Amino acid sequence: MSSESGNLLAGIPASLVAEQFDLLLQTGACRLERIVSIGHATPPGEWYDQDGDEWVVLLQGQAELRFADEDTVRLLEPGDYVWIPAHRRHRVERTSHNPPAIWLALHVYGVG
Amino acid sequence: MSSESGNLLAGIPASLVAEQFDLLLQTGACRLERIVSIGHATPPGEWYDQDGDEWVVLLQGQAELRFADEDTVRLLEPGDYVWIPAHRRHRVERTSHNPPAIWLALHVYGVG
Repeated sequence: MSSESGNLLAGIPASLVAEQFDLLLQTGACRLERIVSIGHATPPGEWYDQDGDEWVVLLQGQAELRFADEDTVRLLEPGDYVWIPAHRRHRVERTSHNPPAIWLALHVYGVG
Repeated sequence: MSSESGNLLAGIPASLVAEQFDLLLQTGACRLERIVSIGHATPPGEWYDQDGDEWVVLLQGQAELRFADEDTVRLLEPGDYVWIPAHRRHRVERTSHNPPAIWLALHVYGVG
């Protein structure tokens, strides 16, 4: 999918065993990827703890995002974006099946 | 709009004299912004000729994008993305009024 042009909402399979990651752009300082989640969630008890900062937007579907330092889950709808600083622990509690959840994630290294 | 969270499809005015640029993220190596176009186009005879690379996706509405080195105009629909290398001259021929065109643009400097 790392091509000169395309459509972020296209090429979505009917189901997926694991989440699908499509690399869109990779430079020395940032990585842009599409993530397709069809009912996937972070495994129980696990947390993402990332070395880099991430900016992520939900383009389609619904998702529930939880931060370890917050009491309530955030319900994300299409267009909702969240800035996730490095090492802010978080997990995805739920993603929709129909329609699939489509994310666009920008990972940033060495923020100036 | 440069905040920790928000919605890219929200806060769209009914009309705009000029295109609206909302900065989402700025680091040493990349700049992420939302652009709202409501019937705007690049002025006749003018071309964008940018010093940096740009990855751009249309999130809502319709737009027509023309490259100086292509014969035909590209019609962009929601989800369509395009990679625009530095100094590849291009212009926006048309954007929709209803719904407004909403873009997400990632400008990248010094691609590794």
